[in-house]
Amino acid sequence: MSTAGKVIKCKAAVIWKPKEPFSIVEIEVAPPKAHEVRIKILASGICGSDVHIVTGAVKANLPIILGHEAVGVVESVGEGITSMKPGDQVIPIFLPQCGKCSTCLNPRGNLCKKDQVSGLMEDGTSRFTHKGKPLHNFVGTSTFTEYTVVHEDSVVKIDAAAPPEKVCLISCGFSTGYGAAINAAKVRPGSTCAVFGLGGVGLSAVMGCKEAGASRIIGVDINKDKFPKAKEIGVTDCVNPHDYKKPINEVIFDLTGGDGVEYSFEAIGKPETMLTALNSCQINYGKCMIVGVPPTDSKITFAPRLLFTGRTWKGTLFGDWKSKDAIPMLVSDFMNKKFSLDPLITHTLPFEKINEGFDLLQSGKCIRCVLTF
Amino acid sequence: MSTAGKVIKCKAAVIWKPKEPFSIVEIEVAPPKAHEVRIKILASGICGSDVHIVTGAVKANLPIILGHEAVGVVESVGEGITSMKPGDQVIPIFLPQCGKCSTCLNPRGNLCKKDQVSGLMEDGTSRFTHKGKPLHNFVGTSTFTEYTVVHEDSVVKIDAAAPPEKVCLISCGFSTGYGAAINAAKVRPGSTCAVFGLGGVGLSAVMGCKEAGASRIIGVDINKDKFPKAKEIGVTDCVNPHDYKKPINEVIFDLTGGDGVEYSFEAIGKPETMLTALNSCQINYGKCMIVGVPPTDSKITFAPRLLFTGRTWKGTLFGDWKSKDAIPMLVSDFMNKKFSLDPLITHTLPFEKINEGFDLLQSGKCIRCVLTF
Repeated sequence: MSTAGKVIKCKAAVIWKPKEPFSIVEIEVAPPKAHEVRIKILASGICGSDVHIVTGAVKANLPIILGHEAVGVVESVGEGITSMKPGDQVIPIFLPQCGKCSTCLNPRGNLCKKDQVSGLMEDGTSRFTHKGKPLHNFVGTSTFTEYTVVHEDSVVKIDAAAPPEKVCLISCGFSTGYGAAINAAKVRPGSTCAVFGLGGVGLSAVMGCKEAGASRIIGVDINKDKFPKAKEIGVTDCVNPHDYKKPINEVIFDLTGGDGVEYSFEAIGKPETMLTALNSCQINYGKCMIVGVPPTDSKITFAPRLLFTGRTWKGTLFGDWKSKDAIPMLVSDFMNKKFSLDPLITHTLPFEKINEGFDLLQSGKCIRCVLTF
Repeated sequence: MSTAGKVIKCKAAVIWKPKEPFSIVEIEVAPPKAHEVRIKILASGICGSDVHIVTGAVKANLPIILGHEAVGVVESVGEGITSMKPGDQVIPIFLPQCGKCSTCLNPRGNLCKKDQVSGLMEDGTSRFTHKGKPLHNFVGTSTFTEYTVVHEDSVVKIDAAAPPEKVCLISCGFSTGYGAAINAAKVRPGSTCAVFGLGGVGLSAVMGCKEAGASRIIGVDINKDKFPKAKEIGVTDCVNPHDYKKPINEVIFDLTGGDGVEYSFEAIGKPETMLTALNSCQINYGKCMIVGVPPTDSKITFAPRLLFTGRTWKGTLFGDWKSKDAIPMLVSDFMNKKFSLDPLITHTLPFEKINEGFDLLQSGKCIRCVLTF
């Protein structure tokens, strides 16, 4: 019997207060309004950005249903939706692409002007309630729930044959790191790179550097347990800051004959590492990419001379990809074996074990934990 | 009678102490050693970087002969020089291009590793003396003197027909600003730009933005007397921060319908303006170029979120041009009327009136003052 047009009761993981675990409760998911799509989630990765909200490092409106790295299947569509239909396999996207705003129309822009941070739909209401009280969504997606509702600008159809528990990584972590290297930095063949933070995003940046032809990739992490996997993926030199007394930028200059790296990537979200990454790159043509999410209200103090000599310091969101254009193409590249996502997915757990997955990620014991529904 | 191989006595403008005027004295200029060239200066512009040394904002070893934006004619050459001969018209270059170091070999590099900041030649000595006591050179050039000696990596032959009192600007100010727009920022046709500081470098950036096809160029300066010239060159909107109570980045957002500019250029050298320029550009695809020289030891404190959303903050030296490759080509473009230097040159004075030219520049009464010899 079709659920279209009806409220769906289902399980969701809710964060009521910062620093508390997820609580799995029954929620009500309203039918999609015009230009909205209701999706049954099939798989969702746990990403560092979800962790930042739970720890309070990045602020969001609570109570909230987190999760933004997922694959689902369309359950029903609201009025005016022509690009997808019930049964289609889709990826909900945290960075929408409306296709009409000045950013979408700019060839280099990918931060669509559609506001995704309020935690509410465009009409100012939520499709999620718990015992009748509204819950916020997360960046227009919310995928730690059996069902979610997203705007059509925040979802894209993908190959029906793609394995959800793998390609869910394309909706955030993989594309963010891989694109930071390929698109944002435009890593040159034969170049030397450094990646700070060897989690899911950092290792995806390593994959991008390797794909672009980098001849040397220095991986930096304070957790040495990440090194074997990093080497398997493409890191040529592993550096643990705990092994050195001198600043890591000096260690990297030593490792590179005094030149520094041509490209550095900060995939952690720490202001001090963002500055170290800048300091680690060649003074003239070095490019430092800020990929990690800096804490709300954090500051960096630096000498402008570090830039004046020619360096580039650039942020990159979702690997500078335009989301709706890029995701189906990246899924297709995955299906054509252009890259593998297996090395990134160390754990797969049933959705109900989300707190276990969260602990694995926070303790550095996993790269990516994918929840299945 | 040839002067080759002999010490030449000539006039030079020396800075003995910071914040004191130039004193014109007779100096001795030794013959060029191996791979060096002695040049008779024909014309030299006074640039903001010369001013920074006089005011003490940027440190250098004193006593010093400043000047680095010049055209001259080869008087004699040292052993091993095959690329130029006495009588050739040349441009001495403050940013050498040895062609052999890792930076010169990198397609994006232009800050050659040859040390130019010691104020001495490669053998650790000076070719300049005053009553037998050595004087420092400035970034390997020193052009506020009738004769100078430079390394062959710091000089390039140009079209003998080029007018020295004009194309001297190609050796620094013009190329720095023009290249910041064309090369470093890669300004897109139809884009909106903002240039902070409408001196010689800033106006050259305006020329570059216009050449690249920018549809709107906002010029910012606290000296409104610079606006008529700026409009003549291509600025479409003049903004005087003294006319507003709100921060200039907010004024620029207002002027651009809330978007900010796609490209901003800081051509002053003030850390606070560097941050304003970053804040003035579009949050996602905006690019801010640091063109002005920041004071030695200055710092900027900023929120990394300004970059995280995708912005680019980049320094650029000499407009990202590789000096020896680019200068003859730019001189040729000038001779082919691709651009005019006339609007930049507001004053021409005999070398002896260097202090008058310096005062004109510092008081904002001139764009470029060119000294003739």
